[in-house]
Amino acid sequence: MKSLKGQSILEAQQFGREILDDLFLEADKMQGVCKFLDGGEVSEEAMHECGSIKAGMAEKKIALLFYEPSTRTWSSFYVAAENLGARVMAIPPARQFSSAVKGETVKDTIAMFCGYGIDAIVMRTDKEGMAKEADEAACASGRTVSIINAGDGKGQHPTQALLDLYTVKRFFKNDLKKDIHEEKINIAFVGDLANGRTVRSLAYLLNKYQDPEKLEFFFVSPPVLKMKDDIKDYLDKKGVKFSEYEKLADVVGKIDVFYMTRVQKERLEGIQVDYDFIRNNCSITKEVVEKMKKEAIVMHPLPRDPAFGEIPEWFDSDPRAKYIQQAENGLYVRMALLKKVLLG
Amino acid sequence: MKSLKGQSILEAQQFGREILDDLFLEADKMQGVCKFLDGGEVSEEAMHECGSIKAGMAEKKIALLFYEPSTRTWSSFYVAAENLGARVMAIPPARQFSSAVKGETVKDTIAMFCGYGIDAIVMRTDKEGMAKEADEAACASGRTVSIINAGDGKGQHPTQALLDLYTVKRFFKNDLKKDIHEEKINIAFVGDLANGRTVRSLAYLLNKYQDPEKLEFFFVSPPVLKMKDDIKDYLDKKGVKFSEYEKLADVVGKIDVFYMTRVQKERLEGIQVDYDFIRNNCSITKEVVEKMKKEAIVMHPLPRDPAFGEIPEWFDSDPRAKYIQQAENGLYVRMALLKKVLLG
Amino acid sequence: MKSLKGQSILEAQQFGREILDDLFLEADKMQGVCKFLDGGEVSEEAMHECGSIKAGMAEKKIALLFYEPSTRTWSSFYVAAENLGARVMAIPPARQFSSAVKGETVKDTIAMFCGYGIDAIVMRTDKEGMAKEADEAACASGRTVSIINAGDGKGQHPTQALLDLYTVKRFFKNDLKKDIHEEKINIAFVGDLANGRTVRSLAYLLNKYQDPEKLEFFFVSPPVLKMKDDIKDYLDKKGVKFSEYEKLADVVGKIDVFYMTRVQKERLEGIQVDYDFIRNNCSITKEVVEKMKKEAIVMHPLPRDPAFGEIPEWFDSDPRAKYIQQAENGLYVRMALLKKVLLG
Repeated sequence: MKSLKGQSILEAQQFGREILDDLFLEADKMQGVCKFLDGGEVSEEAMHECGSIKAGMAEKKIALLFYEPSTRTWSSFYVAAENLGARVMAIPPARQFSSAVKGETVKDTIAMFCGYGIDAIVMRTDKEGMAKEADEAACASGRTVSIINAGDGKGQHPTQALLDLYTVKRFFKNDLKKDIHEEKINIAFVGDLANGRTVRSLAYLLNKYQDPEKLEFFFVSPPVLKMKDDIKDYLDKKGVKFSEYEKLADVVGKIDVFYMTRVQKERLEGIQVDYDFIRNNCSITKEVVEKMKKEAIVMHPLPRDPAFGEIPEWFDSDPRAKYIQQAENGLYVRMALLKKVLLG
Repeated sequence: MKSLKGQSILEAQQFGREILDDLFLEADKMQGVCKFLDGGEVSEEAMHECGSIKAGMAEKKIALLFYEPSTRTWSSFYVAAENLGARVMAIPPARQFSSAVKGETVKDTIAMFCGYGIDAIVMRTDKEGMAKEADEAACASGRTVSIINAGDGKGQHPTQALLDLYTVKRFFKNDLKKDIHEEKINIAFVGDLANGRTVRSLAYLLNKYQDPEKLEFFFVSPPVLKMKDDIKDYLDKKGVKFSEYEKLADVVGKIDVFYMTRVQKERLEGIQVDYDFIRNNCSITKEVVEKMKKEAIVMHPLPRDPAFGEIPEWFDSDPRAKYIQQAENGLYVRMALLKKVLLG
Repeated sequence: MKSLKGQSILEAQQFGREILDDLFLEADKMQGVCKFLDGGEVSEEAMHECGSIKAGMAEKKIALLFYEPSTRTWSSFYVAAENLGARVMAIPPARQFSSAVKGETVKDTIAMFCGYGIDAIVMRTDKEGMAKEADEAACASGRTVSIINAGDGKGQHPTQALLDLYTVKRFFKNDLKKDIHEEKINIAFVGDLANGRTVRSLAYLLNKYQDPEKLEFFFVSPPVLKMKDDIKDYLDKKGVKFSEYEKLADVVGKIDVFYMTRVQKERLEGIQVDYDFIRNNCSITKEVVEKMKKEAIVMHPLPRDPAFGEIPEWFDSDPRAKYIQQAENGLYVRMALLKKVLLG
């Protein structure tokens, strides 16, 4: 198994099953670390783990370089780094503030951070492929600097996919002890499948984690927001079953995992979307809930859009609603990832 | 006396006299802590206090979530948290940066921070009542997370009121040993009384702190910026005397505490204001200073507006000018408040 | 020699040769400190140095107050302060966020920070002379607060000049052991000499560091962007030789140090610039490189502008390209400066 130490995290495809299981084990431990930091009672082991991590991380410097808005990803990385005892440098929102306004290339920007002794750069950009470019610049600097892609435009968002998969693993059929590799997962992706990078990243990652026969995808979206061919070709090649629908009601009874998404208005670029259609057919409605399996789980990368209602607030108290805990899992997974990347 | 531990700080009305006296005692101690951190000589007690606070706060996480501009409130909370040894997470200016641009509700935003183990969220918003909404979301999360209202639009700004009252207490008649509860305070609120939330919050708080007969309000403003009826009704109900004026010169001789305010141009929404009138009649002028009591104090929540001149710079060197120390008091009061809320 | 302790850093002219040599020695030490923090093997002395600095800086508070965009200066000060173990408060980009939008004077803003116990304020503004104004306000506060000018509009950028000079010293003729005071330095300033404050600051600083006969300036720019008279008068008065050119090719063979600059489009204010002319005559071209001395060094304050190409990327691998290391030197010099200012 290739260690993550000193690696960059660029895309979901880079992970193998073994490394994912190892990472998720670390994320489990991080729940104990967080409980300890919060003043809760934990095992000796968790306390010891916490102390040794903090000692190792004390002089690690993590930069947050976000060219695009984010609350959840930004905050969870910030808290993750703080919890580990690292030093965080949050660059002010880069689009307006930084040298980017003076036309500097990402290559020069990254070379600068390398020179300043930064150990990891968590970056979000609006341009697909920019994280990879940054990684090349980091490698060229001759130093060990990890680039962590926190979303690159329409490209990928691999740490979101990691926390999504971890959430599936943790909550699948509400049985913590199960070996999920042995289970068949019927997962529905619902909503804006054309623009959601989280959907793409998770689709790739699930294929790395499960055998093809243990996986079936159900894509539910209005015609204009259908899943793109690259993912479908990939699934075909891997021998994973998938099918497409326009109405969630047509398939709800088969689904174990609902992955709901927000229509990304900011990326539509002139496409006309029939919101009423989505509201009635690609959302969690009373009708859908009625037909939903008792042990199903409902996920959402958040933020959700209350004006649109893909998941209405009244569903929050349903035990199948896991999106709030999913966000929380983001903290544990990102702590685990930063620890693996910086300390091994 | 109900402890502040784990409480949210939402509005001035929530405080009773006993809890205020306790908080102000803590703020006095914080002056010693600051002196110690600054390398000054302090008592053993202050040193010990400082060490025990830092130990208790070491893993407390405080988020600053500001949807509206601020320097003073933001910086004083930041330094307060740092001085106490807590970990501060300053969310980048939320209006442009955060998921708010994607339409996320404050409820979902707060649920997320709760999941990340944040202990206190200091928030400023442009919408009245948003802090209360945030508090409800925090309570619903099942965790102990305190919301601290750092200004919610035209609503309140309770920590400003606390530092204002502390300033009155500290400097009233320039006698530190006095029991202010025994004194009658004649306080003038001058300027933009229609839009100033600090004025509203302080008016409420003074009523909590002093018996009705120990308090008299003098409202000085041009007709279009008069104090609104809700406060006047409240004073009537409490049996507190107040009167209204258009010219400061008409009342200056009676006043112990001048609370000057800036005309909040950004909240006027089309109201025509006669600036020359204000400059001549609702400002600190040479004429006003001449008639001012020797032991009076002049306060201002700052920033002041040099273009308008409610307090001209030449007055800064007058011993009655207390607005710079008032801002400094903000640090001590916010340290005391964070300590009380997080450690008890 | 006047110590820097408690001083403000406002302009290049304030430094004498002795204090510069002392500062550069400290910057050399900071390279060891950084190596140690990075986990590298260093001397006992560097380890000890590091520990004693961290102890002294633990309660020092450094505010970053940037009213104008910056990545490099902001980040290097941030990392410098963190490496020293100080507490950093990065004010959100001040132009949009702070009380400046409400018209507050810099005097009131600085008085506030002084009240909060800030020890040093690193500030960048768009208004020449604002750092000096800030320093006056800090002095008036009666506290020891150092203002560090990180660029004031068309004024100066003294810490950039310090790192520039340190880079010249470190790399001149690629001989670390040389005594640069004994060497004659032929330095070319190339590009936008009218608007570049870094050029102005470095010109002043070089004059403080070298005897007049050990220095010769070559100004290369299109006519509309020529060096202004104040610097030329200053050089005349000091007896330093200089000459002016429109084409780099005409003078390249004589030059030891090339100081390239970006055309500051954001400061041109209506002046028409012939970009093709600059691209062909005031840039590093193949023709220039061919005629360049073998031991010359090429510097640039960065960011460079790829659309304009004053230094094309293909030159980065040339051993004479020192601009990446120059940026890195910024970290060491700023660490040294903060240490000298705050601890002596």
